[in-house]
Amino acid sequence: MPAKKSKPWEGRFATATAPIVEEFTASIHVDKRLAPYDIAGSLAHCHMLAACGIIPAADGKKIARGLAEIEKEIADGEFVYTQSDEDIHMAIERRLIEKIGPAGGRLHTARSRNDQVALDLRLFVRAEIGSILKSITAFQKALVALARKHQKVVMPGYTHLQHAQPVLFAHHLLAYHEQLERDGERFADCRRRADVLPLGAGALAGTTFPIDPEQVARELRFAKVAANSLDAVSERDFIVEFLAAGAITATHLSRLAEELVLWSSSEFGFVALPDDFATGSSIMPQKKNPDVAELVRGKTGRVYGNLVAMLTIMKALPLSYNRDLQEDKPPLFDTVDTVKGCLAVLTALLPRLTVNADRMQAATAEGYLLATDVADYLVTKGVPFREAHHIVGRAVRRCLAENRPLESLSIREWQELSKHFGADVREWLSQEAALARRAAGGGTAPANVARRLRGL
Amino acid sequence: MPAKKSKPWEGRFATATAPIVEEFTASIHVDKRLAPYDIAGSLAHCHMLAACGIIPAADGKKIARGLAEIEKEIADGEFVYTQSDEDIHMAIERRLIEKIGPAGGRLHTARSRNDQVALDLRLFVRAEIGSILKSITAFQKALVALARKHQKVVMPGYTHLQHAQPVLFAHHLLAYHEQLERDGERFADCRRRADVLPLGAGALAGTTFPIDPEQVARELRFAKVAANSLDAVSERDFIVEFLAAGAITATHLSRLAEELVLWSSSEFGFVALPDDFATGSSIMPQKKNPDVAELVRGKTGRVYGNLVAMLTIMKALPLSYNRDLQEDKPPLFDTVDTVKGCLAVLTALLPRLTVNADRMQAATAEGYLLATDVADYLVTKGVPFREAHHIVGRAVRRCLAENRPLESLSIREWQELSKHFGADVREWLSQEAALARRAAGGGTAPANVARRLRGL
Amino acid sequence: MPAKKSKPWEGRFATATAPIVEEFTASIHVDKRLAPYDIAGSLAHCHMLAACGIIPAADGKKIARGLAEIEKEIADGEFVYTQSDEDIHMAIERRLIEKIGPAGGRLHTARSRNDQVALDLRLFVRAEIGSILKSITAFQKALVALARKHQKVVMPGYTHLQHAQPVLFAHHLLAYHEQLERDGERFADCRRRADVLPLGAGALAGTTFPIDPEQVARELRFAKVAANSLDAVSERDFIVEFLAAGAITATHLSRLAEELVLWSSSEFGFVALPDDFATGSSIMPQKKNPDVAELVRGKTGRVYGNLVAMLTIMKALPLSYNRDLQEDKPPLFDTVDTVKGCLAVLTALLPRLTVNADRMQAATAEGYLLATDVADYLVTKGVPFREAHHIVGRAVRRCLAENRPLESLSIREWQELSKHFGADVREWLSQEAALARRAAGGGTAPANVARRLRGL
Amino acid sequence: MPAKKSKPWEGRFATATAPIVEEFTASIHVDKRLAPYDIAGSLAHCHMLAACGIIPAADGKKIARGLAEIEKEIADGEFVYTQSDEDIHMAIERRLIEKIGPAGGRLHTARSRNDQVALDLRLFVRAEIGSILKSITAFQKALVALARKHQKVVMPGYTHLQHAQPVLFAHHLLAYHEQLERDGERFADCRRRADVLPLGAGALAGTTFPIDPEQVARELRFAKVAANSLDAVSERDFIVEFLAAGAITATHLSRLAEELVLWSSSEFGFVALPDDFATGSSIMPQKKNPDVAELVRGKTGRVYGNLVAMLTIMKALPLSYNRDLQEDKPPLFDTVDTVKGCLAVLTALLPRLTVNADRMQAATAEGYLLATDVADYLVTKGVPFREAHHIVGRAVRRCLAENRPLESLSIREWQELSKHFGADVREWLSQEAALARRAAGGGTAPANVARRLRGL
Repeated sequence: MPAKKSKPWEGRFATATAPIVEEFTASIHVDKRLAPYDIAGSLAHCHMLAACGIIPAADGKKIARGLAEIEKEIADGEFVYTQSDEDIHMAIERRLIEKIGPAGGRLHTARSRNDQVALDLRLFVRAEIGSILKSITAFQKALVALARKHQKVVMPGYTHLQHAQPVLFAHHLLAYHEQLERDGERFADCRRRADVLPLGAGALAGTTFPIDPEQVARELRFAKVAANSLDAVSERDFIVEFLAAGAITATHLSRLAEELVLWSSSEFGFVALPDDFATGSSIMPQKKNPDVAELVRGKTGRVYGNLVAMLTIMKALPLSYNRDLQEDKPPLFDTVDTVKGCLAVLTALLPRLTVNADRMQAATAEGYLLATDVADYLVTKGVPFREAHHIVGRAVRRCLAENRPLESLSIREWQELSKHFGADVREWLSQEAALARRAAGGGTAPANVARRLRGL
Repeated sequence: MPAKKSKPWEGRFATATAPIVEEFTASIHVDKRLAPYDIAGSLAHCHMLAACGIIPAADGKKIARGLAEIEKEIADGEFVYTQSDEDIHMAIERRLIEKIGPAGGRLHTARSRNDQVALDLRLFVRAEIGSILKSITAFQKALVALARKHQKVVMPGYTHLQHAQPVLFAHHLLAYHEQLERDGERFADCRRRADVLPLGAGALAGTTFPIDPEQVARELRFAKVAANSLDAVSERDFIVEFLAAGAITATHLSRLAEELVLWSSSEFGFVALPDDFATGSSIMPQKKNPDVAELVRGKTGRVYGNLVAMLTIMKALPLSYNRDLQEDKPPLFDTVDTVKGCLAVLTALLPRLTVNADRMQAATAEGYLLATDVADYLVTKGVPFREAHHIVGRAVRRCLAENRPLESLSIREWQELSKHFGADVREWLSQEAALARRAAGGGTAPANVARRLRGL
Repeated sequence: MPAKKSKPWEGRFATATAPIVEEFTASIHVDKRLAPYDIAGSLAHCHMLAACGIIPAADGKKIARGLAEIEKEIADGEFVYTQSDEDIHMAIERRLIEKIGPAGGRLHTARSRNDQVALDLRLFVRAEIGSILKSITAFQKALVALARKHQKVVMPGYTHLQHAQPVLFAHHLLAYHEQLERDGERFADCRRRADVLPLGAGALAGTTFPIDPEQVARELRFAKVAANSLDAVSERDFIVEFLAAGAITATHLSRLAEELVLWSSSEFGFVALPDDFATGSSIMPQKKNPDVAELVRGKTGRVYGNLVAMLTIMKALPLSYNRDLQEDKPPLFDTVDTVKGCLAVLTALLPRLTVNADRMQAATAEGYLLATDVADYLVTKGVPFREAHHIVGRAVRRCLAENRPLESLSIREWQELSKHFGADVREWLSQEAALARRAAGGGTAPANVARRLRGL
Repeated sequence: MPAKKSKPWEGRFATATAPIVEEFTASIHVDKRLAPYDIAGSLAHCHMLAACGIIPAADGKKIARGLAEIEKEIADGEFVYTQSDEDIHMAIERRLIEKIGPAGGRLHTARSRNDQVALDLRLFVRAEIGSILKSITAFQKALVALARKHQKVVMPGYTHLQHAQPVLFAHHLLAYHEQLERDGERFADCRRRADVLPLGAGALAGTTFPIDPEQVARELRFAKVAANSLDAVSERDFIVEFLAAGAITATHLSRLAEELVLWSSSEFGFVALPDDFATGSSIMPQKKNPDVAELVRGKTGRVYGNLVAMLTIMKALPLSYNRDLQEDKPPLFDTVDTVKGCLAVLTALLPRLTVNADRMQAATAEGYLLATDVADYLVTKGVPFREAHHIVGRAVRRCLAENRPLESLSIREWQELSKHFGADVREWLSQEAALARRAAGGGTAPANVARRLRGL
């Protein structure tokens, strides 16, 4: 056996790796995060190798024991990584051989780092999607709880950030519930596609050993075994898909964050943050800032950037494995952490929000929010909608000029605009009635919102 | 009724839109592509309005007839768009009123442009995903046909663009089949999420009319009705998801395109393009360039860019509808056209490819492709893999120094490296045997590939 | 001479280009926009060829005359493009030969499409940067005019969208002036780097003819001639740099657009748009929406996307020219049009803005805007700033609890908080004084702003 | 004075920050990298405060001494950061007060974290651009050294990855020299725009103290003082510009990396990496992979992603400072490290490259590289270029069919194609002559390249 060398692959190399190359190519500082998955994968691989008689049963047991010890060392923070380990796979194999001797060298039978890292990444993505789905559910519960708590609060609904029509604050919150629901579905779809065992693909062409990948798939609970070895080691589309699902989720959180910032402003005054969820200024003694919402909004940047990074990496790479793929981990890990962090902090923040129902209600008095209802009223009297729209537009113009609310127009004034107005237009112009009318489909009618909340 | 005005909403406006604003905000030159979907949506809406008694039955019939005529005018290229039409929705309504009089003004009852455009986009995306799925299937068939035609051709499998192990050319092609299969799944998942009727959401809060959205959903074959009106008019995540699916597909096509460029080079010489699928140089008389593959690769840029554009648009928009959303159409349309165009041209190109099996086979002689097999051989003799790897590494180093192939080593020379080598190592070193051994999981063994091809 | 063929390079080709390939590779529908630059470049090239005796003087004259006629045909919209023309270069050469016979075939001497298109793009970028710089200057003038018109208007300065300290509205507008000033510098720097003549690089290696590139550079007013032919035909970094400068400009415009949207809201009410710079709703008769600002904000997406598209295209392309580069035009043209369009519409909008000085002034009463000034007051009395900040923080907390402004605290109440307060704190607490104090550096003091405005 | 509290701004706050908020908003783990710049800035600020009599001279000295000690503690790794420090600015101030007592609380007079962090970032960017410019120069020197070493080596020049015309390998390397030259210019331009002192802007509106920003600018060697305080604290365009310059540089390095990967392949065989600059395979004993080049190529992804992240962060932020800006540091730091790391490793690699001149030369025999020269020959005989191109195209077609080189055609065979061929065509068809002819402009003629190399 050769003297101990620093790289397990250096048989054909005349000289050691240059330090600058070792430093530039090492990924151990990043991929050590994959250690638990690497060990779980190695254990399943080792069990199968022994079961198939590819390695001696006794060696299989030694390896399994050694891996269990290494897992504990890592969990306890006692494992020592060195840069010459290159990556987590080599670090664990190196340590295994230190612990159990040459038998440790049997673990890599019928396996390459190429299928091994693909396995680790799939296990990681699968587990983290599980964790993200829990975070999404918790966040949705916080939305629902806030909606229930303020179920009758009315606010101006906006289009173009202009007052449009009155809506329930609860209805507004439930819009985010819908968005997050789809985000969860997207992550779950991604998990389904990630749930394929790549082990057995070897370096690229499959392995020469009579392995039983189905056994490994069962032990690791994979839904199926990869059908093509080249694809298994060279593709990372499950990561791109994950990053895209994360980017869409970040979009949704950025929209809510933007609204929290707007609503916390003096001008809106719709919500207030508790002191422990805001921060101050180093210079302005009076400031209480919505930093959490701003940071959630700002972190959209890194989540988008991670997606672009990974798409760029994959562009025009010939098959099969290329070292460029090592760069898949930083964006993946960062999106996992950012999406989970943003969900968690918003989930903690929502129940602490003070909702200023009076300010919201007061705001609905501005902007002629019931103008559409008047047009609809005319339609019920037989006026074509387009004409009704014109008539009410002129009513609004008049009220704007005279600085009056629509509600202040007398029947006589209404009838000057159109003979189709009757006395009942006054009662039609009630916000309560207006809300109740929007009962079809996904409208904001209180009955609708209540039914929806009961179902969640 | 007011005198004819150029904008259907201008009742409350004192002056007409400035020309520079009209030009800057108009989208008619882009969104006229949605005309067929807009008309289909309007027809279903009109049928429902009449069925629910919201508009007179007679007017419903007039509207339906008018829409049918307009559809024909558009199909025949006789429809005249004007910039003052703003968008396709207003253009069609304007024409409808021209044709059937004030009854045309009833069509927009219980509807807003906000839910209308959301409907058109969902119909468009749903239809185009159907079309893309067909294109993917056709492309996959072309891959399979090429694989079948060259089922026995062997080429060097690459990692790091270095020769690694021999693989079947058919196996290599089938890796792309797998990729495109997942691409199709992603589009189908996106279609499922897009398959929700937004009509009835009105401008943002629902409509005051007693509409029956389920009827509209049935007529337009939507799986369900949107549960929240604010979400229905303000979200475009189905478009972002579509663009992400397109970007991943573009990645896959860019990888194949890169390989076609490499394989067409003098240095590789693995494939040749027919004269009618290549182009020449304006100055160099001898050139025959793989422009199609280069353009497919280059178009990855626009598809990635479209995704970034849409993510940027959505970032931090407060609810509900904002005019920023008008910018969703150019990236959506461009990705549809680019992905379909690239799939179509590659589908046409593949069957015309001349595969130079001899060059591929000859290339497998370089790079010590069977070194892994020798290491595996030693493992079968009881040597731990890691040690076996070292031994073969030294064999390779010797052969490199002496410029010899591994196959040229005598038994005696092998045994100098390790006493575990037996006479059978020579027959182990056959490419045919090496391929056949990779039979587990998704390995490249001819039996595997044949089975896979039979199933496709 | 060969019979007329459809492609000028098809001498070595046995078959014509397949229609699907012709369609997929044609760029004539996009690059015809380069026609004026192509003709200007060809004229200069032709003059040089004749001056150097590379083509007969008589043919040079014929070519020049033919090009002039073609230029007119194009300007008059009479030029007929066909898809088989491939691109604008071939279309013009085809037409030239139609017009003047075989002598037209001499124009392409000592030139390739590779250096020709690089030339056209550089001429285009150079010209469009000139145009953008004018647009920036016009926009800056509009900012300055608005600032002058409302030079004394005070508004709350914001950090975190919370009221922070009072600032002049003019000071706020001038912040954008600074941003656009740097944007202009970036475009000018880009123009300097684009201002290099690539002609003479030929297809990639230079030309065999004794050309005089300096003469061409003089005629086309290029600062210098490209030093390396491979670089000249294969690089597009001047385009990436242009797109990056455009993206930064779009960022700045998106920030102003966001503020216009906020300021137009009911809640802020700081500005109002004239009717002719706003648009209405198809359903809500009362709506007047800040669509122009929203679209400027939304168009940021396409400008960012164009940059990503071009970066993606360039990634990992081997030297020298590759057909991928054809894809450089759509993002370039789109960013040119979008940046110019956004600048123009905002330049037209600014003078039409109604500034509601009373609402701005009223808003400065909320949020304890002078708290920092009180802390600074204490510092002038010898209290360390950090301690002063604490003291005023407690004053704010008290006022918040009692819902009082800081200005309402009596001297006695101030002195309960710190013995360093004297009677002069009351006069210190004047907004006018607070503004005037901020006179150092780029502070908002009216004297500062006035001086700055005088200098612009 | 208030009892010691954990946040310097908490005077107006009733409760302490929630732990999840503290963790989510803390940036100390990232921004501690700015410590040296923060201290340099604070020192200059303190000197000015004392010189202007804003703080007592004695306190100024104490502060300066304290800062010097803290700088040493940080350099020695003895400084203890805590999460409650929030950021590096507060950590240093906290430590300063621990060391010198309440006088430390005077340092923040006339300053906010908003202008302070803007200062730190500008100092950082300015310094790192200096460092990157040195890295670029070193890399260029390595290119020039390699070019000089192989000054006479000829290789096929490529377009579309097809053999086009012969070029000098040195000429090819110098194309990258040009690219990096422009990259350096872009960084220098960015530095010029970053070279502006933001201190004095305070939180947003300037400071109430009679500071002397010019003195600070002189001490820190800034070219000028920011003209607008709102702009100074809210803009990060110098960072976006830096990231864009980094992205363009990454593009260039990715192109060279791609070529190194291609050239190292069996098929090209143009270069070989030394063992210490390559790495092996965990499973394939024969592999020697160009990992360094692949990683340089792959890291393009993160550099592009960083740019997108920052553009996304800035989109549509209202003025002035928003907490989103905290997210500017990770992409900035990562691009600094990545660009410098890639330049350094390539600079180390280039001199170790084995250039296989024979393989390059041999490759020039394939692909009819001199076909353009023959067409040019005909032009010198009076044939219009377009016709000459056709004639030579037919010659190539014939040679292809007969599998012969152009050089093998007899005079008689040439004359069958065109009567303009004379006996001198044979000598025209020499590679040496072909190279020498390309002497105009930036052509590959050896005389050109030699002159260029002498000038570098």
